[in-house]
Amino acid sequence: MGARKMMALGLDIGGTAIKAMVVDVTGAIVGRASRETPASSGVEACLGAIEAAADAALEDAGLRRHHMVGAGVGVPGIVLSKTGIVRTVANLDGWSDVPLRQLLASRLGIPVLLANDANAAALGEARFGAGRGIGNLVLLTLGTGIGGGVIMNHQIVEGGNGLAGEIGHMRIEMTRPRPCGCGRFGCLEAYAGAKGLIKRAHEALADDWKRHSALHEVAEGRSIEAVDVFRLADDGDFLAIRLIDDTALALAAGIVNVMHLLDPDLVLLSGGMTAAGPEFLGKVCSFVRELALEPVAGTPIRYAALGADAGGIGAAALVLK
Amino acid sequence: MGARKMMALGLDIGGTAIKAMVVDVTGAIVGRASRETPASSGVEACLGAIEAAADAALEDAGLRRHHMVGAGVGVPGIVLSKTGIVRTVANLDGWSDVPLRQLLASRLGIPVLLANDANAAALGEARFGAGRGIGNLVLLTLGTGIGGGVIMNHQIVEGGNGLAGEIGHMRIEMTRPRPCGCGRFGCLEAYAGAKGLIKRAHEALADDWKRHSALHEVAEGRSIEAVDVFRLADDGDFLAIRLIDDTALALAAGIVNVMHLLDPDLVLLSGGMTAAGPEFLGKVCSFVRELALEPVAGTPIRYAALGADAGGIGAAALVLK
Repeated sequence: MGARKMMALGLDIGGTAIKAMVVDVTGAIVGRASRETPASSGVEACLGAIEAAADAALEDAGLRRHHMVGAGVGVPGIVLSKTGIVRTVANLDGWSDVPLRQLLASRLGIPVLLANDANAAALGEARFGAGRGIGNLVLLTLGTGIGGGVIMNHQIVEGGNGLAGEIGHMRIEMTRPRPCGCGRFGCLEAYAGAKGLIKRAHEALADDWKRHSALHEVAEGRSIEAVDVFRLADDGDFLAIRLIDDTALALAAGIVNVMHLLDPDLVLLSGGMTAAGPEFLGKVCSFVRELALEPVAGTPIRYAALGADAGGIGAAALVLK
Repeated sequence: MGARKMMALGLDIGGTAIKAMVVDVTGAIVGRASRETPASSGVEACLGAIEAAADAALEDAGLRRHHMVGAGVGVPGIVLSKTGIVRTVANLDGWSDVPLRQLLASRLGIPVLLANDANAAALGEARFGAGRGIGNLVLLTLGTGIGGGVIMNHQIVEGGNGLAGEIGHMRIEMTRPRPCGCGRFGCLEAYAGAKGLIKRAHEALADDWKRHSALHEVAEGRSIEAVDVFRLADDGDFLAIRLIDDTALALAAGIVNVMHLLDPDLVLLSGGMTAAGPEFLGKVCSFVRELALEPVAGTPIRYAALGADAGGIGAAALVLK
């Protein structure tokens, strides 16, 4: 048998699906599969689904477990990678202080390493994506909420309690702070997350009683989505433009705070809101240049490259040293 | 000759004085000296003063240059330690892209390493001070303005442009941002720095036209200082208490933002405002517990231990591996 490329399993546990992929040392996915997440059936059922997804991905690649150097797991919760323990997962029942690394290593018979899913995505982008070769970067995931991951010296910054990278809950407003989904006030997420954008859209519509904005028509037919606001802003709708500008400004303030604290070599944006395209990114960059101290004002800010695979690829990267 | 303890020179360049100290591997200062900073006389004059301070500290210790493993230098500006270049120094004339490491190594005949002064202070506290043995910590220096340093994995986080640790210029207010000394708006420093506190004190006095606060009497005799506000708050002056509470809240918001991004094992506060004592620290901690996400709410926050020597000791720590 000739030299085989080193490969690893990347397992991305989501609230609705468990994605498994076989990833080689170049970050290429050579096999993949997914299973529904048994979110309300407890840990044991999840372990079974993870194992089934892993085996299906291996079968897709024409490989076996012993061909893998290990499995990395991205978990949508608070993870302590050193001890291999998942402290909490918001959307899965029964996940409290679960020794996932050990449980899964026993089942799979290969070494297992854990990371928070957004942190894994940041590592994936740093190793194989838009940040390839860059040792110090920060990823912001812009979805319903805002998450993130910090990579320093090519490694995930996890923090002593597994909480590092919670960029969405950076406070950017004291005087009139908006409520955030976390129960706190003034968080970046409340200003720049998709849910926050929609909430602000409804408030703006209530003020636009002369019905200048075309967003009224959208709101009457169905629920407003972030994409509607972006589309109407592209069409020149004044209210939508203001909403998007406010979003970009808040996001820029958050990014600048990260730059002033860590001065990373690259900032990446991923998640659903990046579908807004280059114009939104341009607005964010323009506000960043306005708000940042001079030495960091030119720090590159880009969209991430690996899309929804970033978490799985980054999880595999945990074991692909 | 028996085994001699490893020692290093720690050089702390300030706007008014250059402090030199001989530091041993336990962080103890075994000799010290200082010279006035020739702030407006250019780089060459500064190099002479640094050399003179270094030799005087060595003489104080009864040692010679060749007894030192090297010299570390804390610089009050933007430093790129890898290239050994000082990019800019706010308070010294002529300091622009100065290859200080090389210039000083030639003069002293020993290896030289550089760091920003607040970063050096953070390293000093992490190696030998209030953070002894802790690999991940953040220091905030609370003076006229607010600076800071980030230590991850026992190392200074310098950033690609040498700007990391600029915690004072974290934006915490969007709606009604106060102007900051940096020319920007809404920076933490404008809310929680001593200068910001005094500015807010004057505004509050202007509103207190019934002259309930004893701060009016202070303001008539001389300029208000931060210590006056702290003292009157201790005496129960309602206006001073409100000013201190606002300061502690803003500081807590900044600390919480750092915790959510990096989840350090320890947060240290140093600088003139820590003279306010345990009560102010208690207020800050109490606000932090209120504002922080649960997993990090208990992160210890303490006053630093090395006082004005932190920068010099930390500079020495750069070469005392």
